[in-house]
Amino acid sequence: MYINKTVKEIQISDIRKIYEKMQTYENTINMSLGEPDIDVPEEVKKAVAHHAVNTRIKYSPVGGMPELRQKIADFYNENFSGKFSADNVLVTVGSTEGLGSVMKAIIADGDEVLMPTPAYVGYGSLIKLTGGTPKYIDLRENEFKLTAEILEKHITPKTKLVILTNPNNPSGTTLPKEEMEKIAALLKDKEIYLLSDEIYASIVFEEYTSFAEYWEKLEKKLIVVSGFSKSHSMTGYRIGYIITNPDLQLQVKKVSQYNVTSTSTLSQYGALVALEKCSDRKEVSEIYRKRVEYFKNELEKMRFKCLEPKGAFYIFAGYENIDRLKNMKSLDFALDLLEKTGLAIVPGSTFQVEGYVRFSIVHDIPVLEEAIGRLKKYMNL
Amino acid sequence: MYINKTVKEIQISDIRKIYEKMQTYENTINMSLGEPDIDVPEEVKKAVAHHAVNTRIKYSPVGGMPELRQKIADFYNENFSGKFSADNVLVTVGSTEGLGSVMKAIIADGDEVLMPTPAYVGYGSLIKLTGGTPKYIDLRENEFKLTAEILEKHITPKTKLVILTNPNNPSGTTLPKEEMEKIAALLKDKEIYLLSDEIYASIVFEEYTSFAEYWEKLEKKLIVVSGFSKSHSMTGYRIGYIITNPDLQLQVKKVSQYNVTSTSTLSQYGALVALEKCSDRKEVSEIYRKRVEYFKNELEKMRFKCLEPKGAFYIFAGYENIDRLKNMKSLDFALDLLEKTGLAIVPGSTFQVEGYVRFSIVHDIPVLEEAIGRLKKYMNL
Repeated sequence: MYINKTVKEIQISDIRKIYEKMQTYENTINMSLGEPDIDVPEEVKKAVAHHAVNTRIKYSPVGGMPELRQKIADFYNENFSGKFSADNVLVTVGSTEGLGSVMKAIIADGDEVLMPTPAYVGYGSLIKLTGGTPKYIDLRENEFKLTAEILEKHITPKTKLVILTNPNNPSGTTLPKEEMEKIAALLKDKEIYLLSDEIYASIVFEEYTSFAEYWEKLEKKLIVVSGFSKSHSMTGYRIGYIITNPDLQLQVKKVSQYNVTSTSTLSQYGALVALEKCSDRKEVSEIYRKRVEYFKNELEKMRFKCLEPKGAFYIFAGYENIDRLKNMKSLDFALDLLEKTGLAIVPGSTFQVEGYVRFSIVHDIPVLEEAIGRLKKYMNL
Repeated sequence: MYINKTVKEIQISDIRKIYEKMQTYENTINMSLGEPDIDVPEEVKKAVAHHAVNTRIKYSPVGGMPELRQKIADFYNENFSGKFSADNVLVTVGSTEGLGSVMKAIIADGDEVLMPTPAYVGYGSLIKLTGGTPKYIDLRENEFKLTAEILEKHITPKTKLVILTNPNNPSGTTLPKEEMEKIAALLKDKEIYLLSDEIYASIVFEEYTSFAEYWEKLEKKLIVVSGFSKSHSMTGYRIGYIITNPDLQLQVKKVSQYNVTSTSTLSQYGALVALEKCSDRKEVSEIYRKRVEYFKNELEKMRFKCLEPKGAFYIFAGYENIDRLKNMKSLDFALDLLEKTGLAIVPGSTFQVEGYVRFSIVHDIPVLEEAIGRLKKYMNL
């Protein structure tokens, strides 16, 4: 029977394949998914339980509760030098639906979307689903550092959108402020939107700059996408948001309305409390920082080459210096490692970079020690 | 700045316009939205509150929790003569996301989707967002009764999907069993999917037949779309599902995964309990039946011509026999009525039928009496 050609061609991601293979093994350590092990804040849980029982849960207004939209604007203004009001904000079904609805609103057949690599796995498929073409910027030659100069070289008349993930998934790296300024200056006069995926902005290990700081410099062609899945471990709540100019917000809202109607009302009550009572994630960031530091050191002892994480909870590690591994495709390495040790990680090919793998650091130190032990054994160290 | 042309052209629905205008008046009666006034079952509320506090809420498996998918299959097998397993079921962000993801998986540029009128407002925009063309079958000449014969006349080589809403929104009418059988026979050998929107299937006033009964006759080219928003008043939970053959389920799952990742895990726990402990909606149906009967009688006394509701909680009423109204466009009537009386209803034009309006019967009898009083006053009766 008839299936849309683009949909048919889109693959279930390698992350999912690894995850499914993992289910067939015992005693596995899952370092594949970006699912935080740290619990949802107690205040959020209690508020959601309270509203479930005591509040009549109806359809939320399309685009999100006005008080939550205002609170998100305030949060960005206070923490990331934003100058936003509720009119800039749209609440979405996780940041994923935000990404999808933004792309649908902007992109048409033949349009190009530019992304540096390593790039988050979801972007490419979403772009294809809108009829657009993902264009990856290979940054290997520049140690995975994006500059405004490199970006400019890749812009074509078909470029409609640039996506930057800051902090990055899978590498945890952040963009230097001076480069962000240059990128803003570059895009200022072009008919190109900048989507800044800041889903990890609250989990950072040193000072962090959001593109919100360049809102006016970017002539308001900025779209910030974020949410509560990573900062507050609210993955299962499906609650995210976008921030952009009110005209584009209205267009994205139409797409979102017809595709999902609105976001879970209960989850929105949870998000309100997350911002009211637990917006500061310094303690959580410190937990992730320590773990990442430990794991990166151990990997480097084994001659893995790691990008320097400044946030998030991932390590993106290259293995070209390791004889035992250097000729393996990253998918083969990940599958073989899983089969032989029960340790699940994600191949770099998923993020458009061969010879690297991603470790998701969502376990406490003792589990990380066990993971390192298995890696060493696998490599006969 | 650049916006996708299709998105730009799509309008915020008239229902939304009426709703927004309503906010500027006092003492309104809202008979516009399909938001049940009957509360979410206590068992559901308590279960959700319990899981919010006591269960670690993580990402749900893509496509929904296996136990919920099985429970939905069981529910359809027991109540609607289905022959389904968990592999047939995909859990979605309300039935809306189910509709959107199914359409995206099936439709490509230039494909046509056939629907009888009156047709639910969301279909047309979703079809356009996928690049398809909505084709409405005008049933006015046949008293809004679809037959297999009429359907056949409208099928073209471009037809990829037929959407039937059973019970119907906005009219509450259901398809006669003998006609469903003929429709199944007609579509059996064609490369055309049948989407049966059965979101109101649990709110019925007499015996009801689901297209699930014709699963094999339809050569498994059936997609049932449903959810918990109307049957269990769980609108704000955003939880629905589709049931189809496993091949198509997989294709729709890919779309759904990239667009929303998964549905709220908490809402899925709520849906589990809704099916385990409160799947029988006879009492709720009886409440709606009594209200609908009362309101329809009163409308008919005023010479409105009502389609006969056999389920759901709407009345679709024509006013061509009423001199005071007969020359008004339905949008003008709805706006004027709101302005002069504070009574909010939805114009028939929203559903592709002029000269009619939809009343949403989501209030108790005393409020309905007040609404009738205002209507009478408006018409100088």
